[in-house]
Amino acid sequence: MSARKSRSGSPRTEPIEFADYILSQTEAVNRALDGFLPPARTKPATVHSAMRYSLFAGGKRLRPVLCLAAAEACGGRLKAAIPLACAVECIHTYSLIHDDLPAMDNDDFRRGKPTNHKVFGEGIAILAGDALLTQAFEIAAQCRGWPRYSHQKIFLELSRAAGSLQLIAGQVADLEGEGKSVSAAQLQFIHERKTSALLACSVRLGGMSSNCAPGDLRALTVFGRNVGLAFQVIDDILDVTQTTQQLGKTAGKDTAANKATYPAIVGLDKSRQIARRLTQKAYAALDRFGPKGGNLRALAEYLLDRKH
Amino acid sequence: MSARKSRSGSPRTEPIEFADYILSQTEAVNRALDGFLPPARTKPATVHSAMRYSLFAGGKRLRPVLCLAAAEACGGRLKAAIPLACAVECIHTYSLIHDDLPAMDNDDFRRGKPTNHKVFGEGIAILAGDALLTQAFEIAAQCRGWPRYSHQKIFLELSRAAGSLQLIAGQVADLEGEGKSVSAAQLQFIHERKTSALLACSVRLGGMSSNCAPGDLRALTVFGRNVGLAFQVIDDILDVTQTTQQLGKTAGKDTAANKATYPAIVGLDKSRQIARRLTQKAYAALDRFGPKGGNLRALAEYLLDRKH
Repeated sequence: MSARKSRSGSPRTEPIEFADYILSQTEAVNRALDGFLPPARTKPATVHSAMRYSLFAGGKRLRPVLCLAAAEACGGRLKAAIPLACAVECIHTYSLIHDDLPAMDNDDFRRGKPTNHKVFGEGIAILAGDALLTQAFEIAAQCRGWPRYSHQKIFLELSRAAGSLQLIAGQVADLEGEGKSVSAAQLQFIHERKTSALLACSVRLGGMSSNCAPGDLRALTVFGRNVGLAFQVIDDILDVTQTTQQLGKTAGKDTAANKATYPAIVGLDKSRQIARRLTQKAYAALDRFGPKGGNLRALAEYLLDRKH
Repeated sequence: MSARKSRSGSPRTEPIEFADYILSQTEAVNRALDGFLPPARTKPATVHSAMRYSLFAGGKRLRPVLCLAAAEACGGRLKAAIPLACAVECIHTYSLIHDDLPAMDNDDFRRGKPTNHKVFGEGIAILAGDALLTQAFEIAAQCRGWPRYSHQKIFLELSRAAGSLQLIAGQVADLEGEGKSVSAAQLQFIHERKTSALLACSVRLGGMSSNCAPGDLRALTVFGRNVGLAFQVIDDILDVTQTTQQLGKTAGKDTAANKATYPAIVGLDKSRQIARRLTQKAYAALDRFGPKGGNLRALAEYLLDRKH
């Protein structure tokens, strides 16, 4: 986590506190995930070990931390948001396990470690992904509901973001776009679904867990969508500019697979401009939260500055 | 659907009406599933076509029909139970798509048709399975809740039955048992999870949708578990005794894969005895429902008599 002046020019007023904040939120998420998941030795141990292998492989916990920061921006409590933060992380991890499979992106490394199917075999990797997706809904069901944001609404929110019109649509379009000429519009379709939908869902769920006002939820939606798109554009940029060691996953994979990326379509400089513009839109959406939205803003700045 | 005297000796009082009943319930489920799922042409069309290909491949709709019959036994209405009946069928279909994959059972035919990955490729088959699992929760969220059976309770019920301690546990144990010597106790562990858990969940959800009394829910649980086990024992028997044409899927696969089955461990005659004993236990659990439980009982009889 960088504590220096951000690229956007606005100095972080409390850099050390922000690093501490991220650390404490990440640890809270990790503790909660550990409590929600069956122990690794629970029969059948293979699948529970495989679920934990990928879930605790050093992920940045970006989505759950955003969820918690959104709850905070709306005056909510960590305890109310944490099941939803953990549910979203389980969905994110399942999607990574399945994306890495030979029939999909066929990747051998993820976060500097062998991918799930390289360690446990394809059959168990498929089942561990299935299990994490299912577990996400079991964990989400343990959240607190409100009259305005009932369990029913929360389940619809989560299942739609992860479903065939959003997260899975993005993965399908990505898979089918490989080796083909893809337009900037098609690339945006992919990114909006593959990354932005679940990210926006994370911050919306944070707001819902805090029983936020409808206007707050709309603002969080704009924030989440723009941060999500910016995040994916930066992922594309890093794939081109960073080494495998810096990334902790195979660098240049997108180029090697002839995958559609922002740098490939609009060039590196334009891609960086797009990422910055998206982040500015995200900042603007946070105005209504005042100082309570400070950590959400700092997270967006961190995303623009990240190197891996 | 057989309309003759059942093997258990009790004459069906209204055989034609029962066949009509099954047909009308199956059609209600099919219509509802068609309405819940995105049209096949919805972008990305591949995954929506693949989801519908397996969901409308001629499945028996056993789980949803049991769910609706359980609702009926508790005095509930079809309309309240149908989202849950459809959710369970989506989960069942996803599990078949993933089970058939080369990394799992590697089966080329299912219900007389090429399996999902043979038609759409492995990548899309994995994603279609993921999408059906996710869709199941979106559909379930559209059910009606009650003070006693809230959306939260219903979600926990469904996610646990489909999760790593039940449905997925059975599939993992099944996968890991291939080619190994498996005891009758281990086989029961597999069958209880791989088949019985989701079947019991189906009838329990039917009861819950009807706001049933706690005693009714306990009786449905006993019924569902025993019918589920009987169903799997009969599946094992049919794999040995029927042809590929009769089954609509590759016969003798279990034997060829050296899979643990009841006939392989305890012999054919003993397997048939076990199936009958389990069904008797299921019948006994239905006593408290009186005539309203007639269709549930008839369904259990049908399961014992089926030939494919």
